[in-house]
Parts: sequence; C-alpha cells; structure tokens
Amino acid sequence: MQVTRGQISLFLCLLSCASSLGTRYTPDWASLDARPIPEWYDEVKFGIFVHWGVFSVPAFGSEWFWWYWKGAQNPNYIQFMTKNYPPGFSYTDFAPEFHAQFFDPDEMADIFEASGAKYVVLTNKHHEGFTNWGSPYSWNWNSVDNGPHRDLVADLGAAIRKRSLHYGLYNSLYEWFNPIYLSDKQSGFKTRDYVEKKAMPELYELVNRYKPDLIWSDGDWEAPDTYWNSTGFLAWLYNDSPVKDVVVTNDRWGLGCYCKHGGYYNCADKYTPGELPDHKWEKCQSVDTISWGYRRSMKLSELMDLPSIIKDMVKVVALGGNYLLNVGPTSDGMIAPVFEERLRGIGAWLKVNGEAIYATKPWRVQAENATVPVWYTSKSSTVYAIFTSNPMQNSFKLLTPKTSYNTVVTLLGNPEPLKWAPLQTSGLIVLLPDLPFTPADAWTLKLDEVA
Amino acid sequence: MQVTRGQISLFLCLLSCASSLGTRYTPDWASLDARPIPEWYDEVKFGIFVHWGVFSVPAFGSEWFWWYWKGAQNPNYIQFMTKNYPPGFSYTDFAPEFHAQFFDPDEMADIFEASGAKYVVLTNKHHEGFTNWGSPYSWNWNSVDNGPHRDLVADLGAAIRKRSLHYGLYNSLYEWFNPIYLSDKQSGFKTRDYVEKKAMPELYELVNRYKPDLIWSDGDWEAPDTYWNSTGFLAWLYNDSPVKDVVVTNDRWGLGCYCKHGGYYNCADKYTPGELPDHKWEKCQSVDTISWGYRRSMKLSELMDLPSIIKDMVKVVALGGNYLLNVGPTSDGMIAPVFEERLRGIGAWLKVNGEAIYATKPWRVQAENATVPVWYTSKSSTVYAIFTSNPMQNSFKLLTPKTSYNTVVTLLGNPEPLKWAPLQTSGLIVLLPDLPFTPADAWTLKLDEVA
Amino acid sequence: MQVTRGQISLFLCLLSCASSLGTRYTPDWASLDARPIPEWYDEVKFGIFVHWGVFSVPAFGSEWFWWYWKGAQNPNYIQFMTKNYPPGFSYTDFAPEFHAQFFDPDEMADIFEASGAKYVVLTNKHHEGFTNWGSPYSWNWNSVDNGPHRDLVADLGAAIRKRSLHYGLYNSLYEWFNPIYLSDKQSGFKTRDYVEKKAMPELYELVNRYKPDLIWSDGDWEAPDTYWNSTGFLAWLYNDSPVKDVVVTNDRWGLGCYCKHGGYYNCADKYTPGELPDHKWEKCQSVDTISWGYRRSMKLSELMDLPSIIKDMVKVVALGGNYLLNVGPTSDGMIAPVFEERLRGIGAWLKVNGEAIYATKPWRVQAENATVPVWYTSKSSTVYAIFTSNPMQNSFKLLTPKTSYNTVVTLLGNPEPLKWAPLQTSGLIVLLPDLPFTPADAWTLKLDEVA
Amino acid sequence: MQVTRGQISLFLCLLSCASSLGTRYTPDWASLDARPIPEWYDEVKFGIFVHWGVFSVPAFGSEWFWWYWKGAQNPNYIQFMTKNYPPGFSYTDFAPEFHAQFFDPDEMADIFEASGAKYVVLTNKHHEGFTNWGSPYSWNWNSVDNGPHRDLVADLGAAIRKRSLHYGLYNSLYEWFNPIYLSDKQSGFKTRDYVEKKAMPELYELVNRYKPDLIWSDGDWEAPDTYWNSTGFLAWLYNDSPVKDVVVTNDRWGLGCYCKHGGYYNCADKYTPGELPDHKWEKCQSVDTISWGYRRSMKLSELMDLPSIIKDMVKVVALGGNYLLNVGPTSDGMIAPVFEERLRGIGAWLKVNGEAIYATKPWRVQAENATVPVWYTSKSSTVYAIFTSNPMQNSFKLLTPKTSYNTVVTLLGNPEPLKWAPLQTSGLIVLLPDLPFTPADAWTLKLDEVA
Repeated sequence: MQVTRGQISLFLCLLSCASSLGTRYTPDWASLDARPIPEWYDEVKFGIFVHWGVFSVPAFGSEWFWWYWKGAQNPNYIQFMTKNYPPGFSYTDFAPEFHAQFFDPDEMADIFEASGAKYVVLTNKHHEGFTNWGSPYSWNWNSVDNGPHRDLVADLGAAIRKRSLHYGLYNSLYEWFNPIYLSDKQSGFKTRDYVEKKAMPELYELVNRYKPDLIWSDGDWEAPDTYWNSTGFLAWLYNDSPVKDVVVTNDRWGLGCYCKHGGYYNCADKYTPGELPDHKWEKCQSVDTISWGYRRSMKLSELMDLPSIIKDMVKVVALGGNYLLNVGPTSDGMIAPVFEERLRGIGAWLKVNGEAIYATKPWRVQAENATVPVWYTSKSSTVYAIFTSNPMQNSFKLLTPKTSYNTVVTLLGNPEPLKWAPLQTSGLIVLLPDLPFTPADAWTLKLDEVA
Repeated sequence: MQVTRGQISLFLCLLSCASSLGTRYTPDWASLDARPIPEWYDEVKFGIFVHWGVFSVPAFGSEWFWWYWKGAQNPNYIQFMTKNYPPGFSYTDFAPEFHAQFFDPDEMADIFEASGAKYVVLTNKHHEGFTNWGSPYSWNWNSVDNGPHRDLVADLGAAIRKRSLHYGLYNSLYEWFNPIYLSDKQSGFKTRDYVEKKAMPELYELVNRYKPDLIWSDGDWEAPDTYWNSTGFLAWLYNDSPVKDVVVTNDRWGLGCYCKHGGYYNCADKYTPGELPDHKWEKCQSVDTISWGYRRSMKLSELMDLPSIIKDMVKVVALGGNYLLNVGPTSDGMIAPVFEERLRGIGAWLKVNGEAIYATKPWRVQAENATVPVWYTSKSSTVYAIFTSNPMQNSFKLLTPKTSYNTVVTLLGNPEPLKWAPLQTSGLIVLLPDLPFTPADAWTLKLDEVA
Repeated sequence: MQVTRGQISLFLCLLSCASSLGTRYTPDWASLDARPIPEWYDEVKFGIFVHWGVFSVPAFGSEWFWWYWKGAQNPNYIQFMTKNYPPGFSYTDFAPEFHAQFFDPDEMADIFEASGAKYVVLTNKHHEGFTNWGSPYSWNWNSVDNGPHRDLVADLGAAIRKRSLHYGLYNSLYEWFNPIYLSDKQSGFKTRDYVEKKAMPELYELVNRYKPDLIWSDGDWEAPDTYWNSTGFLAWLYNDSPVKDVVVTNDRWGLGCYCKHGGYYNCADKYTPGELPDHKWEKCQSVDTISWGYRRSMKLSELMDLPSIIKDMVKVVALGGNYLLNVGPTSDGMIAPVFEERLRGIGAWLKVNGEAIYATKPWRVQAENATVPVWYTSKSSTVYAIFTSNPMQNSFKLLTPKTSYNTVVTLLGNPEPLKWAPLQTSGLIVLLPDLPFTPADAWTLKLDEVA
Repeated sequence: MQVTRGQISLFLCLLSCASSLGTRYTPDWASLDARPIPEWYDEVKFGIFVHWGVFSVPAFGSEWFWWYWKGAQNPNYIQFMTKNYPPGFSYTDFAPEFHAQFFDPDEMADIFEASGAKYVVLTNKHHEGFTNWGSPYSWNWNSVDNGPHRDLVADLGAAIRKRSLHYGLYNSLYEWFNPIYLSDKQSGFKTRDYVEKKAMPELYELVNRYKPDLIWSDGDWEAPDTYWNSTGFLAWLYNDSPVKDVVVTNDRWGLGCYCKHGGYYNCADKYTPGELPDHKWEKCQSVDTISWGYRRSMKLSELMDLPSIIKDMVKVVALGGNYLLNVGPTSDGMIAPVFEERLRGIGAWLKVNGEAIYATKPWRVQAENATVPVWYTSKSSTVYAIFTSNPMQNSFKLLTPKTSYNTVVTLLGNPEPLKWAPLQTSGLIVLLPDLPFTPADAWTLKLDEVA
C-alpha cells in the first residue's frame, strides 16, 4: 500500500494538531505558550527575510531611515537630506519614487527557491507604517494607493506559494510617527485608540486576506502586551483564524515578552544562544550587516560572504534554531546580483549538504573542535558533522561519536564510503578524500549508525 | 452715559443667546432647528470662500478632479493624465507638488479684507480627504505631513482674525475614496466605522482646536443624517463646544437635510430663491464659473466680471441672503491677480455703497423695474435702492417707496441731497446727478424717511 | 478700375523699396542706416511682446532669474533656491518643467488679435540661450529637445500669420553663461568663436527658416558691433535674405549702437522721448511692471491697469513711436486672465478709437493741456485729439487746431457731429455729449478739416 | 653607480622616443602608424573601462539606450518608456537624475587599484554627446552644467593618478543625435561643421586640459577618417600635445581604420584574435555581458564570474593583448558590490600570479592542451604556464618547454621548488602540490631557465 504525502500530513496532524481539534486556547500566556509549534517550521530550517518599503527609496543608512532622520535627528541623515533634497522634503515624498517597475514576483521567488530556503517572510508593514498591500486602515500610505500601485504582499505571496514555500508576513505593531499611536503613548498607553482603530483591525484583515503561515511580529517593545491585546489576538489566531493549524509566530508581542512568550523565540535581532536552548528559536541575520533594507551605497566589505553565511547557518541549525537570512530589494523591485550570488551559493551548497540541515534535530553534542571546528546535527541514528574550514590534511578526527561495526562514514557529495578507524573510548579518525572546491568552504561527514 | 460696543454685544446676547444661558439643545432636528442663528452672521452679508487642496496642483477641470478622473472616468480627465503623466501616476502623487511656497497669510488676508468681506471660509478638507491641518486621523494625507508641511488652517485663521473677520471652515463629511467610508457605503450605511473612527473624531478635534465661527458642512448627501450622527454633533456644538454661542452652520447634514434642517440654508450650490425666503440663507458662488478650485487653464470668458458679481451680491442681499464668493488659491499659495482685481473692485464699491449692504434687512418689496432694475434693502426707516445698470437719463423713477415731507434722497458717495418729486399714489421721481464712473456699474439711492 | 491691396503694396514698394530693386547695402552704418523702414511698421503702431522661456518655470523675480541667481548672486534669488530646491539644483534642471501643456497657439493668437495689436514679437531666445525652436546650434538646450518638445516659434508664428498679423522674433545676441561667449569676452572680444560658431549661424538659420517680419535684437551691449559683425548680418538681411523687403529691425547691434544705428530705435528699455524724435522709434513696456517673463507671485499692484496702458500707448503714438506691450505666458502655455483682460480692454478701446491710432502721423503739435491733457495724431487734414481723463464738464477747449468753415468735430463712437465754436486766434471749444463709460478712461475727438 | 628610475626612463626614451626628439610625424597613416607604442602600455596588461553617463540613469537595456529608443525605435525601449514615463519625456530629462551623490573618487579608485589594474579608461563622452566635464562645446549637456554638477573626468583622474595608475579617456567622435553632425551626415560628409565646431575643438581641449595617457577613440565608423581629420589630430597629438611622449591611442579613427591604422588595435568590440597578432592589441570586455553601462535590472546569470574573467584575461595576455575590463557605475556614483567582488577577486589572484601577467611577453608558443588547457607567457628565459582549471591530479604534463639542468619549476604562491622530470624530445612532467583554493580557479607554474 502506497502512503501518499497527503496522508502522511493528515497523520502528523492527528498527532500534533490535537489542540486544534479539541482544546481552545484562552487569551493568556499560560495557555498560548503551551501551543506546540507546527511541525513544518522546525523542519524547514532556512528562510529568506525580505525588507521592502518606502525606506528602499532613500536606501540610505538603513530601513530605520525615517527614525534616524526625524526621530533621533542623527546628523548623518540630516546632512544627507540637506545635501540632496529641497528643504521641506518629507519622508512621504519618497513614496512616489517607490516604483517597483522591474518587480517580477516569479523571478524573485526563483532566486529565493534557488537558495534552498523553505520559507519567505516579507515586511507587510515596517515601523514607517506603509503597508505593502492596500490596507483600508492605511489609506494613501500603502503600496496600492502610492508608489508601486500594486499589492506586493499578494503578488510575492502567489509566486512563493506556487513554489511550495511557506509564506510569512512581518508586521510592525507600532508605527513611529502615527499620531494616534503617539497620542496613546503620551497617555502612558492608557488610551488604546491606535490598537483598536488601526493596529488590530489591520492585523486581523491581513490574516484573513493573505493567510500567512507565519507572523513575524515586531515593534512591540514600547508598550505592554496588554496594550496590544496580544493574547486576545493570538487566541483568535490559534482558535478561529483561517490559519489556526498552520500558523507560526515569534515572541515580540509586548514589552518583556521576547525570549519568554509567544511562538518561537527571536529574542534580540541577530541573537544566537551560547548553548542548546529548550525552546524553538530563530536567528534573523542580514547579508548587508549594516541594514535590513536595501542601501544604494553599500560596499562589499559590509556584506557577509558565502562562507560566513554558511558558518552562521550551520551553527544555528546545530543549536536547534532556524536561520532567516535577509535581503532588501531595491525600490525598482530587484534583488541585487551580489545578494543573488550569495543566495544561489547557499542553494548550491544545500543541494549537496541539505540532508544535514533540513528536518534534522540537534544532536546530543552540538560542536567540537578536534581537527577543525565541527557542528553536529542528526536524524535518528545518523549524525552529520559539518566542518566550515578546510582541515588541509587527510586524517580527520572526530572525538564525540561512538562508532559500532555498522558505522558507515561518507562525505556528502561523494558516493564512496570513507575509510575510518575508531579512537579510544569514543570518536573516530576518518581518511578524507581530496575535498571538492566549494566557494562555501564547508563540507559534511555523514555518520550512519553512530551513537 | 456712553455705551460701549462690548456692552451692546452683551445686551444683544442677553436677548438672543438666551438658549445658551439656560436651555440645552437635544439631538433632534426640532430642537436644533429652533436655535436662533447668531446675529453676526446676518449682519456681515458678504464672505469669501476659499477652495484649496491637492486639487490645486493638477488645477485642471475642477476641484472634483480626482472624482472625474477615477470615479466618473471622464475621458477629458483620463486624457489629461495620459498625455501629461506617467502610467501609474496616482492622485496622491500630486501632494508633493502642493508647495504653497509663496503663501503669505497676511497678504492673502489683506486681499480678503480689502474686498469688504466680513467672513472667510476655508476648506479644511474637501472630498479628497486631504486636511489642511495635521489631522491625526488623516496621517500622511494632510498639509503638515505632505506638500506645504504647514498648518494652513491655523496660519490663514490667525491672519483672518487679526483683521477682525470671522473665520469659518468648510468640512466634507464624506471622502470619495476613503476605503473605510466605501466599506460603510457598501453595507448600505449599516456599519458606521468611518463616522466613528474618522469623520467625527476629526470634526470634534477641528472645532476644539481651531474654534471656527462657522462650519460649512458638505459631502453629506449619500447617507442619512443618522449615519453621520449629525444631530449628536450639533447638539454638542451648540451646548458644549468652545464656540457654542458664536458658531453658525449650514444645512448639509445628511441626505434630505438641505433646505430643511440645520443652520442657515445653502440648498444646492449657487442656489438663489425666486422670492424672499423665511429662513436665513446663503448663496455660494465662484468667480471662476467652472470651478471652485484654481484652474491653470482658466480663460477670461469663464470668469465673472465685477458688474456681474455686484449684481449677484445685491440681489442676494435684497433677498435676505449672504453672499459667499469663492476664489481658489494656486498650489503656490497665491490669489491670482484677476481674482484680486475683482475682490478689490468689490471692496471699492462697498466703501461707497456698503451702507446699503452690511447689517441691512430686506425691505417690504425687494425689487422693481421702473427705469432700470432696482433692488431694495433697508435699515428701519431708511431704504436703499440699488440699481445695477446706468439708466442713461437724469430723471429716475422709483414706484414703491412712499415718501413724506421729511424724505431725503441722496446718491451714496455724493454729499448733496438730490431733488425729487412724489409720484401719484406712491413712488417718486429723482433728478440724478452725473453718475460717477465705477467699474462695478452699480449705484445706490438712499431714501431716508420713506415707508 | 479697382486697385487691389496687392497692387498698392507693389506701388508702395516701387517708392520705398527702391533699394531692394536696385541698390545694394554695404556692410557699414552709413549705408545701412539709410535704408527706409518698411511702411507697414509705421502703420501698425501697436504690437505684443511675448517673453517665454525656461525663466517661465521658476517664474520668480524676472526673466533675468538665472543672472540674478548665479551672476549677480542676489540674496533674494539665492534664498528662493535654497528654500525651495535641493542643493546642486541648476538652472538647466528647470527645463523639464517647461511643459507648455496648455499651449494652444490659436487661443493665444486670438487674444493677441483681440487686443488690436498688429504685430507680435516672441523671444526666440533670451539671454539664457534656450531657443524656442530646435536650433541645431543649441542642441539639448531648446524647446524641441527639452521641456515642451515643440517648435514654439513655428507654432505661434503660424497662428499669428493666419490672422494677418506681422510676426517678429526677439533674439539675444549674447548668452550670459555660454562658455564660448565667456571665453571671447575674456579675450576682450578679440576672439570671435561664439559669433562664428553659434550666434551668427543660428541667426541666419532663424531668418531663413521662420522669415520674421521683424528682428528685435538685444543683448548686444557688452561687445562692439564689429565683434558681432552686425553690419555684415544686416547687409545680408537687407540685400539677400528671404525677408529683405519686409523686415524691420531695431537698434541693438553692439555697444554704443542703440539710439544711433540700425532700424527703428528702442534706445533703453521702456524709453520714451520727451519730444517728437526725427527717427522712427518703439517703446517696449510690460504689463507686469517688474518683469517681462511670467511671475507666479505677481500682485495686482505691480501690474499696469488698462487706463495707464492706454495713456502710455496714446502718448507713444502721438510722439511717432510704436507701442510694444509685453505679456509673459506661463510655463503651462497660458496667458494669465489678468493679462487677457487688459489686452481685450485695449482691443475694445481700439475698436472705437483705432482710427486715431493706426496709420496716423504725428501732428505738428503733439500735446496740449487746456481742459485736460490731450494728445494729437493726424491723417492729412484730419486731426485726432485723444484725452485720457474725463474732463467732467461739457465744454471742452482745444487751443491748437485752426478751424475753418468746413471743420467737423465728432466724438469717436458717437455718430452725431458735435457743436463747436472757434476760439480767438486758434483753437475751438466743443460741446461734449455724455461720455460713454469705458474702463480705458480715454476718448477721441476727431476734427476734420483743421490745420 | 646607481641608476635612477628617471635615468632609465630617459634611456628608454632615447631608444623609443626617437621621434619626439627629432622626427615629426606627418598627418598620414604611413607616418603615424610607424610610431612605436609607448612602453608602459604593453607592460600594464590590465585596465578598467568605466562607462558612465546619462545612460546610467535609465540604466535599462544598455548605454545605447537613447539610440535603441529613438534611433532604432526598438519596441522594448519604447515600451519601457511608455510604461514608466510621461508622454513627451525626452532623453535630456534623465540628466537631472544623474546625481552621483555617493561618488567618492578615492573609494572608486581604491577598488580599481585593488583589482590589480594599471590603467583606467573613463568615458569622457559617449555617443549621447554628454561630456563628463564642463566642455564649453557641449554647454548645458555636460556633467558640470547638469546632473552631478561636477567635473567627473577631473575628479576620478586625480584619484587614479594619486595611485600611480595610468588614466585614459574614451571619446566618441560621433554623437547620434547632434543636429550638426546629422547635417554633415546628410551631406554625405561633404560638410564638416560638426568636426570643426564641435568634435575637434573639444578633443583638443580635452587633451590639453586632462593630459590623458590614452585616448580610446570610438564612434568613428560612419565617416571616413578624412572627415574626422584624424591624421591631423594624431600628428598634433604625437608631435605637439602635452602628452606626445606618453600617449597611447587605439584604432578607431574612421571608416575602415580599425584593425589597420592608429595605435594599438581594438578591432571590433570584444574581439580576440585566433593566434598571436603582429601588432599590439587590446580586448575590451564587460563584466555585464549585456551592457557597458550600468543596468538596474541586471541578473547574476548575465554577469561574468571570476573564473571566466581570469580565463579571458590570461588568454588575451598570452596572445600579446591588453585586457580592458568594463564596469558601469550607478547614477548615484557607486560600483555595484557584485562588480567590486569580481575586481577584488582579480586583484587577489594577481597578487599571487601577477608576475606571469605584468610586463610579460608572449612566448614562442601561446597555448597547449596536455593535462588541462595551458596559456604561456614569458620574461626572457622564464616561462609561465597558466592553467585555468584544476587538473585534479598530481602529475602535470607540459609538452612545449625545453628544460635544462638549471631549470627550476615553482607554483606561484608556493615557496618550495617542485619536483619535475623531463619528457622525451621536449616538455616535462611536474609533481603538483595540493592546489590552494582560489575562487579564480587558475594557477601558474613558473619555469626558470627553459627554452
């Protein structure tokens, strides 16, 4: 009897979606935090983060352009504006230049798919408040009324899903300069006009309209979750929304929430734990180390190269996390070739080494440093040892795995089993072949039947 | 004993403001319609209407540009856009070009004052929804966040009030393309989100912030007043607002309201009654007969000239109305000289003839047509006979006034009493002097002690 | 035998164009100055001057915008730019905004024709160097390559000629910032690259291509006429050009030329002689007293009104001059209504009084001041007495004309001959009828058979 | 006795600059073609070509944008304009958007220097006619009057020379749409106005002002060299110009000239000869295989990667050519990181292998294909064998070199001499060490004392 993929999903759901069949979540952290994270999320490991908005037009400094300019009054930003724009030019005046005229969702999705990523998270709205869809709550400040005159959330989403990738949406709770938010803030968050008239109606509509697999919440930190009514929203999301069974969220749902409540943990931006955490987490990282949004003046030295990306991803996966790697499209709607090159490079590496990444679990030991630094991942009795620098010698020592008579060692990408010998107590020494060139500078030893 | 102007105001208030001292209005038309219109309004007779907004940027067709283009899809407007703008250019893209860089509120107010007008009504928000102040309910779609980056409502208001003119604000209830309004509309106005989240909070804030003497409501006609909760707003306005004693409103408060409920009546745009109405009314009229907003392509033949304006005003005042004459500033913030010329021309005429206009009452007969057409106004036993064409003869007959031995006839602007003789039954014949040249082509005979 | 207009022209030419039939002019002032000015020019009396160019885009200050900003570094202009434009914005950056999108040559020509003008002079190139036609010598700095993308010289010309008006072209010899001119200037005008490569080839092509009836030369004053080779050009123009018989020029052909050499004399801008000159002359005057180019910020008080224009024109014609009245179109291609009003007002006055203007000659006495100021013009034994203020009395004295038994006096526009009586020695007293209203505030007495 | 670098130069000059000391070139090809190419040029081998201009603003299709759009009327370009710009938008309207606001000449020059290039050739003027300096012959169509408002030729030049690189200027003789050129063309190039008034004065001034080490002539092919007076210019350049001793030119000096006359030969764009030519030549190649100018929509697959660049360069040098690799800066003034990465990659490779490139001569045999493809270069008795793919085996055969007892073989970058053994008749077999990783995928064997 053949078991179809659909039947397997159903079966998995019978196990893991129990909650959704019987239990209902109550709007409190105790209940919400108890919800298991849908399986797909832990399996995919690697996603692409896409920061796109009006900030892509000045494309200077970072996606926090508006804040640095008008909030922090950072002299660099003030000078940039003074030198290049007329007095009285406002941030809203950038919106007409957000043309996205070269945006081809299929081409962009092709690049993301080629990277080996299994999910894509697009900013539907960053702190600037500009929505990449025609939000009725953000009239004349969204990508349909302004600039691209196009529903970017829908258009990219369709292309992403055509390729069977998961589609997530980033959503900033606060908006730096929204006057209604500022008025609530001035009240010490005693009034909640912004939440009731803007933030929540919009978020509900977003979920109902685009059915995201993931909600990447942000901009929560100035106010407690009670202001945002985050628990109320999440209870609806998990109980009654059209994505209740599949949706994953992160942990940014109010002051003090992160690393503590919600779905998986992001903690701070670019946070990586020192050792294996007991809660699912995700590291978000940007190829441009200085900005999440596109910068017209970026230089090569400010960008991560392929080996450092691979190193970072391998470490994150070994430590049980997901790796969400960010690129910022241009205001024209292109992924810069230098980003494309890295993404395709990751994909080429994953084509050979993906077995050691996707759907793996952290192993009992996550790292060791015998010959060169090694990170471990595992699938039942198979263990993967990924090394992210060339040992430059043929005999390669691994100290932790316990071998048996059945142990088989191979180099991923190499069909022949390798010669190896057990070391005393534990560990083994492997005879490496000439390592194939790879610009990623990382290779994987697969150890079957070790403990 | 000298009686000061202040004491007189107080005394008048004791008579007419009774309500405000004791009674409170209830939110129903019976109560609200019973409120007496504050005295000042009937006395001023002549005001300036100012249509200014994003529509002043294309300055093509009329201030309904957006609607004709995108709502009605009028081919003229579509063609104008197709020929002159890139595909995908949206109405919001005009906002950055609303520079108002030459706007000097004092210079503009000087022109208005020189016209002899006693009140000025500025569009704080037309149907496009763009507010000429930094409305927190219209974030990124207002004159502070966009375009002029300036509070036009405040700036013009300060200059107007410095000159002791009354200051009114035009307010469109609906907004053509506001998605929340459109959603209410689609529900057959069963939902009221737009009113509760946008229209009313904004209108209350407008009143509290700018304390207008007059609210010129518009854009009401698609929905019943119950949708707008107009009676609720008016009850607050008359009972509790900071302008409760002084404020005047018009009659556009919901489908079927106009000519029936509210303050004074506008009825339809440019409406003039055939005979003396029994309710205070106002005629609004635009110098540019084709548009209320500025048009870059206007031609002389489309504009009212001074004599036709004076004729129109005299007729309106004789029939008990106020005359609200419109000019549209440029997006640069200027009053076009051709408008300025008419406004100053009115002022020059009023300097001589204003006595027959300001603070007058309609007479028992409003018009007659013996020698040339004549309009009557009055102040107790003084009657003014205004003729708006040159009779081209010296003996001038008036059929209606009943003279007495004490009757004195003068031509305004001419110190000498004129010779006259009674006609049979009623009327008189006056010996006119050479009429002084006036580009306004209108003169006034003052008849003291007639009946 | 009927004599056609063409035959008359031919006959006149036989008299006045002698030169063109036999003589050739030599390139020296003695010869050139001896050329009779073609008859048409003295007959037309009244023309329209049209300043249009890139300066119409900033439309601030005057058509000398570029010079005041970058040459003189006038703080007002610097501040205007600093406040409204980004740093580094250059004058060339205005060109794309010269849209002329509402320019309808027939509508513009209709207005000019309605003014009663008989010739129109358009700036084909002002000191900024931007040509209003696709000059091959001004590539990418002309109205075909830039801005309007249209041959404005041709388009307006066709409409002007369709109405049988004469068509002249203003041409600036120098260009403020043309680097080749500046290099010649630095050499003390010893090098003549600019003249040979730019100024003259362009001027010849202009004449050959557009066949102007009049060349209004300007921008000559920094260099001697030998630098410009003006006599060479004029000799060609008078001997061999396609307009040799009809063309008229002015006197701005080099340092020290004006009021001395060339065709008619302009002398300085807006110059009016104190008494009758012995050389044909022209006064150029602008409705906007501050600028020849359109100004967005112009105010009524800065504009000439109709009576002052008429006064000015009458004086000029009485003194044997032509009157060239300037209006500056907007960058959109419109004549502002306030200009249109004046132009149509002049036309209305000329419809009645034109007989006293067109094709007249100065009389033996040009002015007197008996009752009110009076200007005289004449046609053989007919004399016109034009008075530009209302005498406000019926008996009107003229001291200079010598009457006879056959003398007939009429008021232009009034069919009936007027009663008059001779005064002692010379002069007469006329019994005026009621003067018809006219916004021009000027009337004409026609005196047939006086001396 | 120490010999200084200056003395050596002098000495070399005594040999090769004979002409400049005594002989003068005559303006004919026989004389001009006989001039030896200054030594520096053959030694530098590798340069950077920089296409920058107004075409960098649309940055679509290629630097031939204007031509494809308006000349060829290519539907892709027409559609691009129709979809994204208003009707009537002209190519000149792009110039204001050429901001170059991030252009830092030192940063750009750093990247070029880091690539190992020894000369840089900037487009001072492409076929669009826009000059990257304030050419007085191209008023209002150059980078000082328009766009950047900066002398790009001077600014980049200063930074290039500070780093002791040679600086060349690309110059297009023709200008697609220059009306004076078009008029000459229409005459069958019988008139030469364009050459005399524009092309040549500008080129002379360019040389006098910027003293380029190299003139990269282009746009010559529509007219014979007699039209351009190329021989006249070159005679001046070689005899009397300030760069007469150092300057190098190419072969594009008129229809039929290329591959035949002038300095070194470019022949067609991207031309590579099949075997060793007997005349110095240069291959120009662009990292973006589709365009020389920057394209906003470029994709990774359209770009050369590092190994293919290195392969190309090695082949060119082995065949006696120079390699001029092109990158197009953005209109903002940046070198895109994807270009920067390739340039730095070349530099890293040259740091190790440059000895086999710079100042080498072609060897008696240029290539062979024993183990893997090999290209040879030489310096007296030293021969370099460069192989551009990994042989994946330790014993490496070279068939052509004739070894002796003194022969020493090393791998560049590896200090130890390698073991080798002679093959029969000629050739040798070398024992390779593990090849170091290099993204350039190319290595060099140095063979001292071979024949």
